[in-house]
Amino acid sequence: MQFAERLNQVETSAIRELFKLLGKPGIISFAGGFPDSALFDVEGIRAATEAALDEEPGAALQYGATEGHQPLREELARLMAAKGVRDVAAGDLLVTTGSQQALDLLGKTMISPGDKVIVEGPTFLATIQCFRLYGAEVISAPIDEQGVDVEALEKLMAEHQPKMVYLIPTFGNPSGATLSLERRRKVLELAVKYQTLVVEDDPYGDLYFDAAPPPSLLALSSEVPGSRAWLAHCGSLSKVLSPGLRVGWLVAPTALRERAVMCKQFSDAHTSTYAQATAAQYLKAGGMPATLARVRAVYAERARAMGEALRRELGDAVSFVAPQGGLFLWVRLTGARGQLQDANVLAKRAIEQGVAFVPGAPFFAQNPDASTFRLSFATADVAKIEEGMARLGQALRAQA
Amino acid sequence: MQFAERLNQVETSAIRELFKLLGKPGIISFAGGFPDSALFDVEGIRAATEAALDEEPGAALQYGATEGHQPLREELARLMAAKGVRDVAAGDLLVTTGSQQALDLLGKTMISPGDKVIVEGPTFLATIQCFRLYGAEVISAPIDEQGVDVEALEKLMAEHQPKMVYLIPTFGNPSGATLSLERRRKVLELAVKYQTLVVEDDPYGDLYFDAAPPPSLLALSSEVPGSRAWLAHCGSLSKVLSPGLRVGWLVAPTALRERAVMCKQFSDAHTSTYAQATAAQYLKAGGMPATLARVRAVYAERARAMGEALRRELGDAVSFVAPQGGLFLWVRLTGARGQLQDANVLAKRAIEQGVAFVPGAPFFAQNPDASTFRLSFATADVAKIEEGMARLGQALRAQA
Repeated sequence: MQFAERLNQVETSAIRELFKLLGKPGIISFAGGFPDSALFDVEGIRAATEAALDEEPGAALQYGATEGHQPLREELARLMAAKGVRDVAAGDLLVTTGSQQALDLLGKTMISPGDKVIVEGPTFLATIQCFRLYGAEVISAPIDEQGVDVEALEKLMAEHQPKMVYLIPTFGNPSGATLSLERRRKVLELAVKYQTLVVEDDPYGDLYFDAAPPPSLLALSSEVPGSRAWLAHCGSLSKVLSPGLRVGWLVAPTALRERAVMCKQFSDAHTSTYAQATAAQYLKAGGMPATLARVRAVYAERARAMGEALRRELGDAVSFVAPQGGLFLWVRLTGARGQLQDANVLAKRAIEQGVAFVPGAPFFAQNPDASTFRLSFATADVAKIEEGMARLGQALRAQA
Repeated sequence: MQFAERLNQVETSAIRELFKLLGKPGIISFAGGFPDSALFDVEGIRAATEAALDEEPGAALQYGATEGHQPLREELARLMAAKGVRDVAAGDLLVTTGSQQALDLLGKTMISPGDKVIVEGPTFLATIQCFRLYGAEVISAPIDEQGVDVEALEKLMAEHQPKMVYLIPTFGNPSGATLSLERRRKVLELAVKYQTLVVEDDPYGDLYFDAAPPPSLLALSSEVPGSRAWLAHCGSLSKVLSPGLRVGWLVAPTALRERAVMCKQFSDAHTSTYAQATAAQYLKAGGMPATLARVRAVYAERARAMGEALRRELGDAVSFVAPQGGLFLWVRLTGARGQLQDANVLAKRAIEQGVAFVPGAPFFAQNPDASTFRLSFATADVAKIEEGMARLGQALRAQA
């Protein structure tokens, strides 16, 4: 059978091979990118579905508008307004089947084969592959702990005239980095200056541990004239409420949003109204702030425990910035005193010691940095984290 | 903003313009393509979600495998086995976000720009648009009340060497036609002879009124050597259980299915596990046969009432074949005795009389037949159907 040529653009084996090893008994995994299911508000979600079936059984179970279930769109607009986003009404957002679908719709709507897209190096692996499936040439912009280097970004924009710039400005995956307020303004100015769509993917912004991060690009866009016209924003309920509902959303300029709606019509018709009606009732019932507070406290404790254990067990073999939110700790093997500097080798040795993580190289669209790796602190409790870091230390010191 | 070139391939205005008019107060609509929400088994679905949250709250709310929730895959394999499908195990099917997504994944996986796809004329509008978005040239094969004309189909296959042949063999949308057993065998033989993927879209097969239709192509493929390797089958729970769950599935040869899984990973990661776990529990509880029996009885009554009223009210101005299942009645304006023969004109006059339907022309990928139109008998009760057909008769006789 001859498949579509676009499939030649993607390569998924690197991480898949690793994930196959995760089935080993007794393994402690920091490889996943998901929230802890023990923190889900099962009873709140159950009550929300009950309410949906009591109040609107027809709507909750029937086909719905491609744009989304109207009560949910209204709740999501309220949720964003509470986070400082002005002038985004229910009608300005499109509900998507997880924010992964928002990325897919952006690819389908915007990218012709050969178009260029700039992403952070490193960035979310599934974004790179999603855009490549639409024929994009994906270009990597350097980042540091303050997020993307805006001077380097401007040079790349001027040189490549990309169709889109894709950023995870807050608690990035995998970097954990957060774009500074100053750089956020600069990014919005660049969008206007180069008339280029900037995509803000923001699944982690709510998951801060102490101080709130700077306002989202979407919130900030009201202060940078013209920038809203070049900004798309992807939101998600997956990291706090439940990934299994598959409820995300896309805010985008009207012409783009309308085309994304058309593409969605032929992608999956609409997002599950059952899940949407449940999410709407949950938000309406007002349970989100308490759930968020609980999740933040647990992840903050785990992040701190992981940072401390990592420092204790691996010492100067690693460098990292303690995460202020999100799910991830991004680590670099320093190679100090001749210690191991290849994260792929460490990953293999770690599996032998009963601990798993994802090496950093696949997260780079270009110029992979093989000394990096990603640890998720979200799903293991503190005792498991400490045991896991001890095993990681053993893996580092193990003979090849 | 410059959008992707693929958007130039699609045109959705025809039906959209019509749907805008449906908001008119008091209108009786036969335009929809959806089941009657009054027939949904709300309590059975509620109990299924309760069971999912009691037994597997983590799995029902967490990220899941892209291939689908394993308990649901097993129930769907059982469901198909009960309909005579042999040798399809849980692992042979991919759960999709409604069967619309199965079509999208087939497009993404199979179609390179310029590839040809043969469909029935008329066929499901969203299939045409979905495949065109991937750059397909969509070619129309003629049908009659026995489904696709297999001789014409073979000529088109020989001439165009298509990447796929897409059929709705049972109670087609919009045609209502069902492919005969003899033609089914021939289609499978053509798939093997021309080494061409045949896609069987089967959302309506369970909705028969009296005698069961011939076995699905998937069931029949065990009798035609080599044909399984060239057959994809799309199933759906939308027409009987609930469209709002968005649960469909794709059965396809391994190499194709694996690539569709990869494409789905970057399309929406996976279908809502909440909806999947609910569907799995519903099927496991054994409620499907009773629900199906109730739905069949109601639609059979409405189909008969519509046929009789249509004959009574419009007489020799129309020709149609009484449907034996599904949701649709496909009508041709005969133009007898100088009567109106343009369904677009009739549609506009009908709206003025307070009744709506979809003209047939947009359902044709090529050579639209402007004398045809589609009536859905699923969502209006018998009294509404009779009133609606009376209004349609008035519309026919109204002065332009």
